[in-house]
Amino acid sequence: MKKIAIIMGSDSDLPVVEKAAQTLSEYGVPFEMRIMSAHRTPDVVREFIGTARENGFGAVIAAAGKAAHLAGAAAANTTLPVIGIPIKSSTLDGLDALLSTVQMPSGMPVATVAIDGAQNAALLAIQMLSITEPELARKLSDARAKAAEKICAKDAELAAKYNK
Amino acid sequence: MKKIAIIMGSDSDLPVVEKAAQTLSEYGVPFEMRIMSAHRTPDVVREFIGTARENGFGAVIAAAGKAAHLAGAAAANTTLPVIGIPIKSSTLDGLDALLSTVQMPSGMPVATVAIDGAQNAALLAIQMLSITEPELARKLSDARAKAAEKICAKDAELAAKYNK
Amino acid sequence: MKKIAIIMGSDSDLPVVEKAAQTLSEYGVPFEMRIMSAHRTPDVVREFIGTARENGFGAVIAAAGKAAHLAGAAAANTTLPVIGIPIKSSTLDGLDALLSTVQMPSGMPVATVAIDGAQNAALLAIQMLSITEPELARKLSDARAKAAEKICAKDAELAAKYNK
Amino acid sequence: MKKIAIIMGSDSDLPVVEKAAQTLSEYGVPFEMRIMSAHRTPDVVREFIGTARENGFGAVIAAAGKAAHLAGAAAANTTLPVIGIPIKSSTLDGLDALLSTVQMPSGMPVATVAIDGAQNAALLAIQMLSITEPELARKLSDARAKAAEKICAKDAELAAKYNK
Amino acid sequence: MKKIAIIMGSDSDLPVVEKAAQTLSEYGVPFEMRIMSAHRTPDVVREFIGTARENGFGAVIAAAGKAAHLAGAAAANTTLPVIGIPIKSSTLDGLDALLSTVQMPSGMPVATVAIDGAQNAALLAIQMLSITEPELARKLSDARAKAAEKICAKDAELAAKYNK
Amino acid sequence: MKKIAIIMGSDSDLPVVEKAAQTLSEYGVPFEMRIMSAHRTPDVVREFIGTARENGFGAVIAAAGKAAHLAGAAAANTTLPVIGIPIKSSTLDGLDALLSTVQMPSGMPVATVAIDGAQNAALLAIQMLSITEPELARKLSDARAKAAEKICAKDAELAAKYNK
Amino acid sequence: MKKIAIIMGSDSDLPVVEKAAQTLSEYGVPFEMRIMSAHRTPDVVREFIGTARENGFGAVIAAAGKAAHLAGAAAANTTLPVIGIPIKSSTLDGLDALLSTVQMPSGMPVATVAIDGAQNAALLAIQMLSITEPELARKLSDARAKAAEKICAKDAELAAKYNK
Amino acid sequence: MKKIAIIMGSDSDLPVVEKAAQTLSEYGVPFEMRIMSAHRTPDVVREFIGTARENGFGAVIAAAGKAAHLAGAAAANTTLPVIGIPIKSSTLDGLDALLSTVQMPSGMPVATVAIDGAQNAALLAIQMLSITEPELARKLSDARAKAAEKICAKDAELAAKYNK
Repeated sequence: MKKIAIIMGSDSDLPVVEKAAQTLSEYGVPFEMRIMSAHRTPDVVREFIGTARENGFGAVIAAAGKAAHLAGAAAANTTLPVIGIPIKSSTLDGLDALLSTVQMPSGMPVATVAIDGAQNAALLAIQMLSITEPELARKLSDARAKAAEKICAKDAELAAKYNK
Repeated sequence: MKKIAIIMGSDSDLPVVEKAAQTLSEYGVPFEMRIMSAHRTPDVVREFIGTARENGFGAVIAAAGKAAHLAGAAAANTTLPVIGIPIKSSTLDGLDALLSTVQMPSGMPVATVAIDGAQNAALLAIQMLSITEPELARKLSDARAKAAEKICAKDAELAAKYNK
Repeated sequence: MKKIAIIMGSDSDLPVVEKAAQTLSEYGVPFEMRIMSAHRTPDVVREFIGTARENGFGAVIAAAGKAAHLAGAAAANTTLPVIGIPIKSSTLDGLDALLSTVQMPSGMPVATVAIDGAQNAALLAIQMLSITEPELARKLSDARAKAAEKICAKDAELAAKYNK
Repeated sequence: MKKIAIIMGSDSDLPVVEKAAQTLSEYGVPFEMRIMSAHRTPDVVREFIGTARENGFGAVIAAAGKAAHLAGAAAANTTLPVIGIPIKSSTLDGLDALLSTVQMPSGMPVATVAIDGAQNAALLAIQMLSITEPELARKLSDARAKAAEKICAKDAELAAKYNK
Repeated sequence: MKKIAIIMGSDSDLPVVEKAAQTLSEYGVPFEMRIMSAHRTPDVVREFIGTARENGFGAVIAAAGKAAHLAGAAAANTTLPVIGIPIKSSTLDGLDALLSTVQMPSGMPVATVAIDGAQNAALLAIQMLSITEPELARKLSDARAKAAEKICAKDAELAAKYNK
Repeated sequence: MKKIAIIMGSDSDLPVVEKAAQTLSEYGVPFEMRIMSAHRTPDVVREFIGTARENGFGAVIAAAGKAAHLAGAAAANTTLPVIGIPIKSSTLDGLDALLSTVQMPSGMPVATVAIDGAQNAALLAIQMLSITEPELARKLSDARAKAAEKICAKDAELAAKYNK
Repeated sequence: MKKIAIIMGSDSDLPVVEKAAQTLSEYGVPFEMRIMSAHRTPDVVREFIGTARENGFGAVIAAAGKAAHLAGAAAANTTLPVIGIPIKSSTLDGLDALLSTVQMPSGMPVATVAIDGAQNAALLAIQMLSITEPELARKLSDARAKAAEKICAKDAELAAKYNK
Repeated sequence: MKKIAIIMGSDSDLPVVEKAAQTLSEYGVPFEMRIMSAHRTPDVVREFIGTARENGFGAVIAAAGKAAHLAGAAAANTTLPVIGIPIKSSTLDGLDALLSTVQMPSGMPVATVAIDGAQNAALLAIQMLSITEPELARKLSDARAKAAEKICAKDAELAAKYNK
């Protein structure tokens, strides 16, 4: 199975991004998680992302805040799909990172998920792999069924309390 | 090769979305383009998207404006990756569609591209297929090389005019 | 008297939404409160909302955050009026939920109230029933008179302290 | 059948608001359309809206732009449901009118529809009347069926052109 | 000397608005501070503001949050200048109140100050009175001189610490 | 009677600002209109505004776009009330000018009107003078009565057309 | 004298950026203008900007729209000051480019000017060179004097027309 | 070596701005740090900034919040480059200060850095001096190398924990 690369611009993003690693683990999808910066270690980005496809990766997840260029920088170095997680920082509530990640120019898409949406970034990567991995498709379906059940249980609990 | 489903909420979105179809054609990726509405023909969405995987689709591109729910509705009916194109409408410059598309709840990612970013939506779908289709990866690389050349040519032209 | 359906996308919305239930109780308006998700349990939404009118409901209150599709999904399944409460979540201060709820396409209105405006959602539902229920109209008038009195009392108290 | 009051702050709003009158006419719902201003003719608002219920109205539609106070002023003078249409004006793309209309304080709901959403305002009023008017419920269902058919026809047309 | 009317929509605004009263007191400008609501006690607004000029008031300060209509409602009932203080509430950081206060239609100005800018509202009222009250003009000048001195003192303190 | 100073940052603002001059003329209020820049001719601002009170002015109207500092610069040079008109320019729809004008620090109020709200700026200045000029108060009342009549006439016209 | 590098992401930015070249020419400051893309020709950026200092450049001006990464990419490749021009594109009025350019992470400043502010970008570059080039300082002063004169002339013209 | 002037509008900005002083110290760049206000002590600004070049300064860093005019006021008084730091205050998350600082009119650039970006403001000033100070260029390069190493170390640490 292809691996997923998870990169983030700073270790301060780890508390949010960790959820992506955890989700991939739950699905048994192999990954490498790295810290690299579009601005401070661009050569690492170029080297790691530029060889990602040949090194067995199937997709890249990139998380960054503020003028979030990391996902775009990754996209410039691979033709693999790149998933961007805009990270909320101390000002502007993540709007800066969202626009910097999603408004990419023609020719260089970044698959953007919600602000701080690390779990969804991982699920999106798994969905991409699932195109040719029926086992992952099955696991995704199972997880959805379980999520639906959980909501139904909460619903029943609420109904028991409020609706007589 | 897997097909790509392109759906839009209204035929008024076609002038923007057409670019996605055109891009897929250029890459030789088969697709079906459909008009269906999360609110007006939800059964069509459920039926078409709910069987997309078994019918040979690899990814879904969904375009909608305003309170853009179509991509989310598609995501709810398949575990295939869903790509959302927020469409700019007559007010708020597309910000409403962007937020309605990208801010999906945990468990239901939508891979959001730029406002009116139909070409990038198609490229993202191709990138997803390219994970296991080396031929598409090669074509994507070629296109990038060509795009780079084109910029270099423009650069040379500009240099000839301005820099003596 | 018709019942009011209150639905929310997640039990995390309950602390806000509970105020709607409480307000309906104060007016003696029967209601059912449920948890269901536009994306995770769409069949429950379709089934519950799709039969709401024949099951004696007069209006639906739907609360959701982020890319808030629940009110829209409810609206797609009934011709009863649907009232949307945009819920503020951890980023963007509720603007995402507000735009996702209010900017509905032609043909599918959602009666949107203020961000986290659960009490007003309930009052709006009561106003709708009051069109043909004079008793509710009277209670609404009484409540307004009482609210006015309360403000006047606060005003008198303030005047006593500041204006000599 | 109850009548619907349509009020607007200025005759410059008429090109947008007219669509509400037209929609009510299509459904055979009687209405009165008036120009009155929360700031310039507040007595007219108070008189007309304050007696609306006893004069046979079932709901009020109020349209205004910029610091749009008209819907709120109407809400202050009746316990009937008030529907607000935020009108886009020359600056800020309607965001000012949207926030001025929807962010009402507790106790005074305004059922807000999309910016310039006059047709939806009318449909929402009809939905409110439909709570106790089965004939209107039937017409609303019919219209939805027709809208769905229209989309399906457009879909078929598109499919004929693009999907071979 | 003319009096200043200070009105607010709710006693929850008092902690912010109190600063206006305190500033007027410092300048020896008489004022009355009242709680009244554009929506809940519109008659009080009309009565109090409508007779403000003849009752010896020279200007009105109105504070409100969210869909802040109070300043506009005051403006509709007097030709005295009305100063609006947009109050920040639990969502949208005061932007809703700012736009609802400042974007008034032609013919009905509200002199809007910064979000939560109660002190400035009082100073603006004093400036208005100062047009024909040289004593107030002198006090305003003195206060400015004192503020400048205070900044210079802080500047000197900082310089002593940082600039050798 | 006191004069009103109207200043603008550039002659490109004149088409908007002219309306202020015209309104003052209609009320018989004397004024001087000047072009001066907070950044390019700060000495002119300081000189003209710094002596405005002693030269018979009662208030200052300042119009500027983008990072609109002119009203603030005027406020720093006089204790007369300063009215700010945020001018919409080619980007951001006037939001930049609005925030730059209204969000003044404590001690330096600017009475801000709507974006491009030149007529209201003039009316606000007239209201300020009217505090001690009963003749102006009377004219303002008359104008309001006329505006109300005009709306009533439009209302009657509309009613004749739509309400049978 | 040091040269200024002007780079833009696409030749579609030229109509805006050209003003920077023209301004530098007026001051007699040598420059090179180039088209290069942070995403499509990152190697060109790295090569050109990475050697800019040794090749006699004193500052870099970078213009880009949407998720504007070019200025940041330039900043990552040189310790020369980088000036960013956010370019307004078809959606969001330049806000996306502004935030993507200005909100740079610690350690990588971009000196951001106004949206579409090409002339100011050039002036800022000239100001930087003027730190050690008294001749440029003199020219900047002269230009300011001329701009002030021009405003005074317009002011006089206006005064002649309006103030009698 | 030229000195850097650091000015702020209020001592409440010091906790943010201090970082600029600290960064300049680390690079051995002399500076003076002052408190002065565009509105309250404009003469101090004019005097200090107006003579900054002749007094040995090479650039000015100006920090201010809300309707942040200080950087613009500095720019009006010198042809040295002025760097603006928008300070986040209690409302609007710094957006007001950002727009007030960056959207300067033609002819008066302010080199704007990120909201609360004091360290970057200092680095930008150092970069400006480095145009003709090779020693500073070397220090900037060293710092970048060190920052890159630090990220690589964090990366290795993370890899040791997550990637087996």
